[in-house]
This record gives sequence, C-alpha cells and structure tokens, in this order.
Amino acid sequence: MTNLLLRNVRPLADEACDILIENGRIAGFGQFEPVAGMPVEEGGGAIVIPGLIDAHTHLDKTTWGMPWHVNNRAAILRERIDFERENRKEIGIDPHRQSMRHAIGLVAHGSTHIRSHVDIDPTHGLSLVEGIWETREKLRGVIDIEVVAFPQSGLMVMPGTAELLDEALKQGCEVLGGIDPCGIDRDPKGQLDLLFALAVRHGVPIDIHLHEAGELGAFTMELIFERVRANGMEGQVAISHAFALGMNDHLRVGRLIEEIAALDVAIVTTGAPSATVPSIRQLKAAGVRVAAGCDGIRDTWGPWGQPDMMDRARVIGMKNGVRSDIELEHVLHIVSQGGADVMGIEGYGLAEGCAADFTLVAGETLAHAVVETAPRPMVVKGGRVTARDGKALVEMP
Amino acid sequence: MTNLLLRNVRPLADEACDILIENGRIAGFGQFEPVAGMPVEEGGGAIVIPGLIDAHTHLDKTTWGMPWHVNNRAAILRERIDFERENRKEIGIDPHRQSMRHAIGLVAHGSTHIRSHVDIDPTHGLSLVEGIWETREKLRGVIDIEVVAFPQSGLMVMPGTAELLDEALKQGCEVLGGIDPCGIDRDPKGQLDLLFALAVRHGVPIDIHLHEAGELGAFTMELIFERVRANGMEGQVAISHAFALGMNDHLRVGRLIEEIAALDVAIVTTGAPSATVPSIRQLKAAGVRVAAGCDGIRDTWGPWGQPDMMDRARVIGMKNGVRSDIELEHVLHIVSQGGADVMGIEGYGLAEGCAADFTLVAGETLAHAVVETAPRPMVVKGGRVTARDGKALVEMP
Ligand SMILES: [Zn+2]
Ligand SMILES: [Zn+2]
Repeated sequence: MTNLLLRNVRPLADEACDILIENGRIAGFGQFEPVAGMPVEEGGGAIVIPGLIDAHTHLDKTTWGMPWHVNNRAAILRERIDFERENRKEIGIDPHRQSMRHAIGLVAHGSTHIRSHVDIDPTHGLSLVEGIWETREKLRGVIDIEVVAFPQSGLMVMPGTAELLDEALKQGCEVLGGIDPCGIDRDPKGQLDLLFALAVRHGVPIDIHLHEAGELGAFTMELIFERVRANGMEGQVAISHAFALGMNDHLRVGRLIEEIAALDVAIVTTGAPSATVPSIRQLKAAGVRVAAGCDGIRDTWGPWGQPDMMDRARVIGMKNGVRSDIELEHVLHIVSQGGADVMGIEGYGLAEGCAADFTLVAGETLAHAVVETAPRPMVVKGGRVTARDGKALVEMP
Repeated sequence: MTNLLLRNVRPLADEACDILIENGRIAGFGQFEPVAGMPVEEGGGAIVIPGLIDAHTHLDKTTWGMPWHVNNRAAILRERIDFERENRKEIGIDPHRQSMRHAIGLVAHGSTHIRSHVDIDPTHGLSLVEGIWETREKLRGVIDIEVVAFPQSGLMVMPGTAELLDEALKQGCEVLGGIDPCGIDRDPKGQLDLLFALAVRHGVPIDIHLHEAGELGAFTMELIFERVRANGMEGQVAISHAFALGMNDHLRVGRLIEEIAALDVAIVTTGAPSATVPSIRQLKAAGVRVAAGCDGIRDTWGPWGQPDMMDRARVIGMKNGVRSDIELEHVLHIVSQGGADVMGIEGYGLAEGCAADFTLVAGETLAHAVVETAPRPMVVKGGRVTARDGKALVEMP
C-alpha cells in the first residue's frame, strides 16, 4: 500500500500544512519530516480538496480522441437512441478504448470516482458493460468506477432488456438504471414496477434518467415516490436530470421537493444549459442529497462537454445564476462530497482515516478555484499521484 | 504596412492554401513563393477564420489578474450597480490597466475587434472612457476597440449623465448606450426620447442593454421600434441581451422578431445561462443581424467568464440547445461575421482585399473548432502576428 508525504497544501483553503499518507489513507495533517524511503511531493501552497466525483456519465458513448463525428441528424430523443444503438459499432465506438479515454480524461482533471450508466440492450447484450469492466480493472487504483445497468433504449418497448438487466445485476453492476418511463417506454407503471422489483431482488439502489419535463415528469416522480415508500427504498433511489423540478410552478415544485426530502431521494444534476433544471438552492434548503455529472461528452448525441468536473461545476453554477463565493463553494461541494453522499462512498473526505483521494486546484480561494480554468496541479488516488498539471500519468490509448 | 506569407492554412475549413498579405490586407489565396525579406509563417494545415469579435463587453469592469474579489453581496441589479460605482476605485479597478488585461486576453484567444460599453456617471465623468482610450492607443494594430458611451447607473435617475453622454459623443465615442428604461430608469419614455435625440444629434448608432424580461421587455422594445421608425434609424440600433425574446409566448415573440427584422434592429446576445435568451435559430430564420459578446468577465457583478469568444460561442451554443454541425457553424458565424455585421466593420472577412485579421483554430472542421477548447495556434491582425498558442505577444500589465 502507498505512503506519501504531501507538503505545503491548504486543505479546503485552510492554513497550509503537510498531509501524511500511510497505506493509502490520510494519517494526519501537520508538519512532518519524511522518513527514509517515503516519497515526498511538494504542494506549493495549493488548495487541496477531496477528489472530484462524476456521478453521472456514460463511459461507453464518447468519441473522445476519435476523428470528429459529423452530426446533422434530427435532435429527436428516440431517433438519437436508435441511431446510436444501430451505428455505434460501425462508427468505432469501442467501449473499452473509449471508456479508457473518457475515464483518464476525468483523472487528468481531478476526479477519483465515477458512476457511469452503461447501455444494455438486445443488440449489445452486456458487451458494453464488459468493456467498461475491462477499463475498471486497468484503472484500478487510479479511479473507481461504479456501473449502472442502463436500459438506454427502453425496457417495455425493447423485449429482452429486463432479462439482460437481471443478468447484469447478477454479474455485479452496482446500480439499476431506468429512463423516462412515459417518454421512452410509454408505460410508466410497467417500467417502474419492473425496476423496483429487480432492485429489491438484487438489493441494489436505483438511479433513473428523468428528462420528462413539467407535469409529465412530476407525474412520473409521484409514481417513483409511491414505489420508494412501498418498497422501503428510502435513501436508495436517485433521479438524474429531474428536469420537471425546473418547471415554472413554484408551488408544485415545492411540494415535489418536500417529498424528495422526506423519502431521501437523491438528485443528480448536469445543469443542462438548454433545459429546465432543478434549483441547487432549493434542493440545498430542503436538505436533499445532490450530486453532479458531465453526462455524455462528445458522443453521437451531441458535441458538448469535457471530461472535467470543474468544467461541469461552471456549467451548473452559471445555469443556476450563482454569483457569490458562498454559492460557488456549494457548487464545489456538489461535484465532490455531493457525489460521495449520493453514491455512498465510505471513507471519502479530507479527514484522518479517509482514503487519500484528492486533487490540488488552482486559485486563491475555493470560489476562485471553481471559476479558474487552469489545470489541476496534482491529483492523488489512494496516496498515489495520478495526474500532474492537467495530464494523467496513465497513458491514453 | 505589414506584409506576410502565411503558408498551409485551410480558409473556413476549405482546401489548404497559402495566404499572401500585402500592406495589411489579403492580396491572394493560392501557392506562393516568398520574396526576399517577406516574413513567412507556417500554418500547419490549421483552419483559418476571420478574427473573432467581442461585440458586447465591459473593458472597464474586470478584476482579471487582480487578487480574487470576494463577493457575498445581494444579487439585486440596482445594488450591484451602486456598489460598483462607489467602490471600483477603492478596489483598484484601474480602467486602463484592467482594460489592457481584458483586451489582451481577447487577443490571446483570437479576437481582432471589440465593442465595449464603458460606464459614464457623475461619479467618474469620462475618466473610465479615457482609460479605455489609452488602452486603445496602446493596442492599435493589435485589436480594434469601439467604445459605447454607457449610462450604467441610469440616465433619468442620475442627473448630469445626459450632459456627460453628450460630451462623450462629442469627444469620439462611436456608439450611444442605454439600459433598462423601465427597470433601471423607471421612465421609459424619458430615457428613450433622450437617447434617440442624442444619437440623432451626433449621428451615432444606439446599442441598448435590455435585461427586462417578459412583457416588460416586450413593451420597451415596442417603444424602441416606434423611435427607430420616427427617427429613420433603421439599421442603426442594436438591442443587447433582449431577454424578453426568450419568454414563453411564441406568438408574442414571433411578432416582436418580425418588427426587429423589418426595422433592421440588431440583436447582441451573450447566451446568459441563467436567463431567458433570444433563440439564435428564430433570429436566423427571420434574417436578423446577430452578434455576440462575453459581457463582463470576473467583475464585481459576478465571477464568470473568460476573455475568449470561443468560450462564449460554447456558452451560446449550449444554451440554445445546438447539436448539429450546421448549427455549430452558425454559432461560429455569430462570434465572427455577426459582429462585423452589427458593428459595420468594413473590409472584414476572408476574401481578397479584406483586412488580414484572422485566427487559426484547432479542430478538423468548423464545428469541431467550436467545441474544442485547445488554444488558438496563431492570431493575425493587419498581417501582424499578435498571439501564438493561446498567448498574446503583447505583454499583460
Ligand atoms: Zn445520462
Ligand atoms: Zn453588458
């Protein structure tokens, strides 16, 4: 296991000190002299924060590092889903190679943990998940990857998918995904009953994509709440996107958020710039667990995104009209501790005994670090340096 | 005047060729051998586009390059305006030094032209404008700066401002600014009558900040249209922000855009992520001239922004839900040719006889260049290289 003495860093912008790491865990903060044979790194007085967490991405989808993918297709959700499923192989989106590029990009920019939804459908079976598992093995000790078994093409409209999800959970996917029970599956009761039954059978949490806006999304949320309660899955369900919470009816949204808080449902936001998004302010006030993710980056769906959770922090902050230092610090909380709260990561944080997973950031204060685009000076995972000056030490394939 | 042979570039992603520059202008495209004494630059096959244009910024406001400015103040518009006016000197926002940093940042990222609104109020008189003029002189040949005489603190509510605007236009400000005639001045008829009278007297165009949303902004737009028509100022008026055009009433918005097109009013968008913004799609379909700007960057108002029009192109594209290559190319058009259309820049473009103002960009295609965050390989103004690899050749103070 890894030992390290990291000198002269400012934990969460506090006073400068050294961090002593023993066996991959934080052994103490203070002034230390290196013992013989212990590696030493100089932090240069930089702020250190716990490792960034991408709690919602799609490692199997990106074209990162491939030739530019020209896309002048229609922006209809169902068509994008079908196009990707039918063409991803031909385009050359190899799930292992591409997830390596994507995950190593996240490492380069300070991430230490990923929750990735991975497509499962009758065309590909579990082959995309297997590609991501190969990446997870190769990057063990560099970044942790949690896989959500994700019925991207739908569950009720895509016969055979339920059995594949069952198999994926049996083989070790940690989370069960879902998607727009009305919009994609046209059968909300059908999808949700199936998802909750599967989750209960395997004892896994649920993280469901919900792009449905306005009243439709609110209706689906109510169906989710009913099933959380009926199955005793409080604290075990996350709703990703939750665009309905951005709708223009503050009373309706207020009541939804009250239920979300009461059932300890988590919200995972991407701050989608062109959609209505949940207010991170309202969710904080209600005490809801909130994480964030980059979602797909440069894939057949769209060209945007960076494998960089600080870039995503900026997207979320700008979309939410954040201006003050206090709120910038909260955005930083969402892309770090918030991910740990939603994913249930044990031993996360900058405290004695926690895993030595952290990133140095450029900037004078935490707020400054969020808006500053300069590369992360150093990233550490389990006491081992994984990136320097915005470049990962593992090579990208 | 400057001569240059720029070899091996792809104009607007077309076939690779050389560009011959004589006396600061484009003399031809093709294959050329350098004559003795002529400087030669190698383009490496990069795409070349006309220089980026920031058509809406505030050179007098940024804290760029200064210690981080902590801001936990209220986000109320009037309070932000008053705080800045009363504290900008004490904070040390020297208009010359800060506008140098801001403008040089824009140069580094590929811009060749700026339209800057500059505050004019009884507290500062014309001193902020003078600071920007000093910068304009120092950066002559590096970047062109057009100054909008801008009554940031209001016109009717701030006695003495009208006389200062009059004086500023006499001394050479090229454009007259205005701001929220209802929201800030509480007297739309008063402000607009005054603005149009001043503009007619000095023969200058108008560029008015309009943050007013929904019906209020629509009402103010109607008042503007009436005065454009009455004063024969078709083609001479721009509305910046125009948040009312993002309101949720497509019939109302459609009628406003029809009038905007009929009166050849221009729209300048910043793609403000937390506001309702005009649809670049609808404006394009109606044939409206559209430019874009970074607006304030890292100032006492808020922490966001980069002095980089490609970064702004991404903000605008994401906010508008742009996904296709064709629409990405249109966003690129807005941050380049669009600015020239709105500012009336003569000799702008990649054609023989045009000024040799352009930037190389990273990327395989124009669409790719928009989403790629890599630094611009080279920026040229009047045939002179002004930046390389994201770094301006002029030093930042
Ligand atoms: Zn997703
Ligand atoms: Zn402005």
